[in-house]
This record gives sequence, structure tokens and C-alpha cells, in this order.
Amino acid sequence: MFADRLIEAIKLKDNPSVLGLDPKIDFIPSEILGKAFGKFGENLEGAAEAICEFNIRLIEALHGIVPAVKLQSAFYEAYGLYGIRAMIQTISEARRKGLLVICDAKRNDIGSTAEAYSAAYLGSSLVRNGKTLPVFDADALTVNPFLGYDGIRPFLEDCKRFGKGIFILVKTSNKTSGQLQDLVTSSGKTVYEILAELVEEWGSGLVGDNGYSSIGAVVGATYPEQAAALRSTMRHAFILVPGYGAQGGTAMDAICSFGNDGYGAIVNASRSIICAYMSEKWKYSQREDKLESAAIEEAQRMKEDIRTALASVRS
Amino acid sequence: MFADRLIEAIKLKDNPSVLGLDPKIDFIPSEILGKAFGKFGENLEGAAEAICEFNIRLIEALHGIVPAVKLQSAFYEAYGLYGIRAMIQTISEARRKGLLVICDAKRNDIGSTAEAYSAAYLGSSLVRNGKTLPVFDADALTVNPFLGYDGIRPFLEDCKRFGKGIFILVKTSNKTSGQLQDLVTSSGKTVYEILAELVEEWGSGLVGDNGYSSIGAVVGATYPEQAAALRSTMRHAFILVPGYGAQGGTAMDAICSFGNDGYGAIVNASRSIICAYMSEKWKYSQREDKLESAAIEEAQRMKEDIRTALASVRS
Repeated sequence: MFADRLIEAIKLKDNPSVLGLDPKIDFIPSEILGKAFGKFGENLEGAAEAICEFNIRLIEALHGIVPAVKLQSAFYEAYGLYGIRAMIQTISEARRKGLLVICDAKRNDIGSTAEAYSAAYLGSSLVRNGKTLPVFDADALTVNPFLGYDGIRPFLEDCKRFGKGIFILVKTSNKTSGQLQDLVTSSGKTVYEILAELVEEWGSGLVGDNGYSSIGAVVGATYPEQAAALRSTMRHAFILVPGYGAQGGTAMDAICSFGNDGYGAIVNASRSIICAYMSEKWKYSQREDKLESAAIEEAQRMKEDIRTALASVRS
Repeated sequence: MFADRLIEAIKLKDNPSVLGLDPKIDFIPSEILGKAFGKFGENLEGAAEAICEFNIRLIEALHGIVPAVKLQSAFYEAYGLYGIRAMIQTISEARRKGLLVICDAKRNDIGSTAEAYSAAYLGSSLVRNGKTLPVFDADALTVNPFLGYDGIRPFLEDCKRFGKGIFILVKTSNKTSGQLQDLVTSSGKTVYEILAELVEEWGSGLVGDNGYSSIGAVVGATYPEQAAALRSTMRHAFILVPGYGAQGGTAMDAICSFGNDGYGAIVNASRSIICAYMSEKWKYSQREDKLESAAIEEAQRMKEDIRTALASVRS
């Protein structure tokens, strides 16, 4: 059961945060880029090699601190075939280091198409005569709910069968998320509130020993009031919280998505950790390991920041 | 301007339909599978080779009849690296034969992540020092609007810059599309009606010489009444119509999305064409070219079906 594996991993590292591997090319140190472009040329393959090296160094540095990584699929797809190869290598390296892998691809479709996405990211794809093979084999995937239950059902089945999870977008962290998600319906409830009820219902068959479901939700740290209300509506959903750090959400905002037991949510940080080496404090440093050292320092700071916030409301 | 290129291509073939290349492994003739698995083994590479061969044969057979192809990304992603390679080869072959390429990937994200998706599918990705390279380089992409304008803006910019298009999901063809899309809001309008107004607004800067915008919409043929109303709301949006054929939509249903000029929409058919060789009429045929012959027959029938329906309402 994914939700139980995630809680176990969080307890092991005593850290409910996830490292977002969003390797925008501008985020990668120039020495890594120089080496990769020198080897493969200034092309998609060179860029993807740099992405891979960047990720592997971050995973090596942080695997003792964080329980999971979240790969933002767009930054891999942007380099085509080579980018996908970098994604596969990153997933494989993260798993080898004992990290859970969330693929943030926000997939959505219906029927056999949704089944194909689910097979690709969570389950396994049919090759021939009933023989199937795993493909990206992540532990969890983000899913967009715009198509209703038809777009969710295939994922539920694979979550059950393969012990995987999904995080369904409910209230996203961006400024214009309200254009659709906050529309008030004739029942008096907003679209995101109705969605939250559906997520709770859809996940009811996949609640683990710890009381949380492998059918989780995405709720941005940038909307703490809504997050607190959604935590009540989705009592069993594991919540993935984007928007902490660079997007403006604080630890106090982020913990609105946690349950009374101090679990049930995981907070993502990407830029603040993977670009920590570019910060005022680190940017003039000559240390060869400043990518790693700055990332470790920020990941530790974030861990303490969230733990302190959680302790303050539970005391 | 994508909308004008699309209308030109439709006029050239006198056919407002698009060939959906959704190469589910079960859809591929056993002789193609046998050859590919014989060469590469019963693995992801073999499956992807079969997908590629299947698509290339269909493109060769149908490029004189249809103006465009639509690739359902999930069926390529399902075979990982090899599947993506098959997608790239299919896009390249379709363009070589003068077909427009719509990538049906329903991507959605915000900020720099949405920019990365847009770069991957429509524009070009940054490699180094301002040097960018095209990646999948499709003519158009389907996009999910759940995140609001933040998730649309980066695509608008690339559509303008690179002469590309997007089709935004408004009312999808599946049974449970109403769970979210049909919710009635406090204004009395449904979610999909509000979305349609936004699509019309977002596309206002990209209206071509023919009066249609490169910022289009997806409206299922399975909801003809809603489609007719949406056509009025989105006067300028080019509409991509799924749900014809195997999903139950008729030609009379599909043409509800066309404008009074008989243009402004394109109807997708996947299974009914690419699996025509499995139909009662063809399945016992011993012809070596039955994949092609059955597909041509069905594509011609569909073309006449839609043209007849269009003529019936315009006379």
C-alpha cells in the first residue's frame, strides 16, 4: 500500500518533505553543463546528460535527508528522447538509494488511454500474449481530474494491483487556480470542494493501516485557509503540498494540510533546494561541492521549519 | 497561423476529419507484431517497432485523404524510451507526407513548467546561451484548462511565435465528463460554458484570415446539444471533435461544432479507421493490404458521411 510506504519513509527520515527534481536548464551549474556539452555537443543529448548528472549529484547528497523525490515531467520531455532517458535514469537512481518516486506529470484521459498512462507510470504495459513489462515504474503519479471518474478509475485499479498511489489535483498553488477551481456551484460548494468529496470517495477502497489513502490530493500551500477546510473534507487523502518556499507558502501554511496525527501530507520544495547554491550566501563560494552543501543546508532548514511548525500546533 | 494552415489543409483534401493514431498494441495486425518481436524480442522495443510500422503504413495509405493526424501520446509513453522514439518517427513521417500533426497529450501545468511543455511540443527548448532546438515540433497540442490562465499563457505565446495551435478541453466526450464540466455555477452558467467564454477570450489575439483562432477547443460529438451552444459562445475557436464513430457520435452530432461557413471544426476518428481491418467485412480477407484497404474505405466513408451531413444543414 503506497500510503503506508510513504508514511514509513517519512518516519524513517523524520521528514515530511519531498525533493522536487525540476531540472530547468538555467538551474544547472555551469561546470556540469560545460562537461556535458563538451562530451555530446550543444544539443538535446548534451542538455539531458547535464540534467542527469545534476539529479544524480542531488540524490547522492540528499537521500539521507528526504524520503522521496518528485520529478516534474515537463523538464524531461523538453529534451525529447534524451530527456526521457534522463528521467528513467533519475528514477532508477532514486529507487536504488531507497527513495520513493513521485512522477509529477498531471496526466489525464479516459478509457483505454488512461489505462495506457497508468500502465506507463505505475503499472506495466502489455507487450504480447498477456506478457507485460514495467515502464517508468514510479511509486506515484499526479493526475488531473477534469474528465471525472472515467479519468480516475484506471489509475485506481493499478494503485490497488501494484501498491502505487496517485495525487489528484484539487486546489493548485498558482494565482489563477481559482478561475475554475473556486467557481461556486448551485449547491453552494466550490468546484474544488466538490472535487475533494469525490477524492475522498474514490480513495475509500485504498486506505492503509495508518488511516491514509493511496488516492491522495494536491493542495497548494499558497491557500492555507482552503487547505485546512480540505483536510477536514478529505479525512483520508494523503496530501501533496506544492507552493512552499519559492512560491511563497510558509511552513505554517503548509502544515494546514497535515492531519491531527502530524502525518498525511508531504511538502514539496524544488527551486529553494536545487538552486540553493545560487543564493546570496553561496553564490560566491569556491567550494566544488557547493551544489550539494547548499542543497543539504536548505533541505535541513526546511525539515526543521516544518517540524517546528508541526510541533507548535500540536503542543 | 495554425488555424489558417488547418483550413487550407482541410480544403485541399476536401475533408474535415483527422486520423487518430492511437496504436494500442491489440489494434496492431499480428504479422506486424510478429515481424517486430522477431527482430527485437518480446519487449518494449519490439512493441514500439510494431507501433511505428503500423503508423507508417496507415500514413502511407491515408495521407491523400486526411489533412491531419492526431497522436494519442499515452500509447507511445506506454513503451517508454522506445515508444517516444516511435512517436518522433511517426510525427516526422506524417510531416514528410504533408500532414498536420496534433499531439493529444492533454498537458497542463503552470509557469516555467508549462513553458517547458510548450517548448517540447510546439516551440523549442533552451540548450545553451540562447540557443534553442525544436523537440517534438507538432503543429498543435491538446491542453487541459484546470489550472486557469497560468496554465494557458505560455502556450499562447508559443502559438503566436511559432505559428502553432492548441485545443483546450472544454466539454469532453466521455460519460462522466459532467461530474466537473457540467456543474452549474452561481452565475447560472456551467463550468464548461464559463470555460468556453475564457477560450474565446484567450484566443482573441490569434484569429486568422478565415475568422478562426489557433486557440481552439475540444468538444465531444457525444454531446451535440451542448456542442451547438458552445459553437455560438466560442465563435472563433477551431473545434476538435472526438467521440465520432466507435464512441457513438454520428456525423449529424459532429457537425454541431462546425460554423455556418462549413468550417471551423475537425472530427477525429481513431479506432473506426485503424481497426477497420478487424471489422466483419474485412476480418476474413486474405489480402495482404487489408489494413490499408479497410482503413481507406472507412476514411472515405467517414469523409462522405460528414460532407453529406454538412451539406444537409447548409442546403
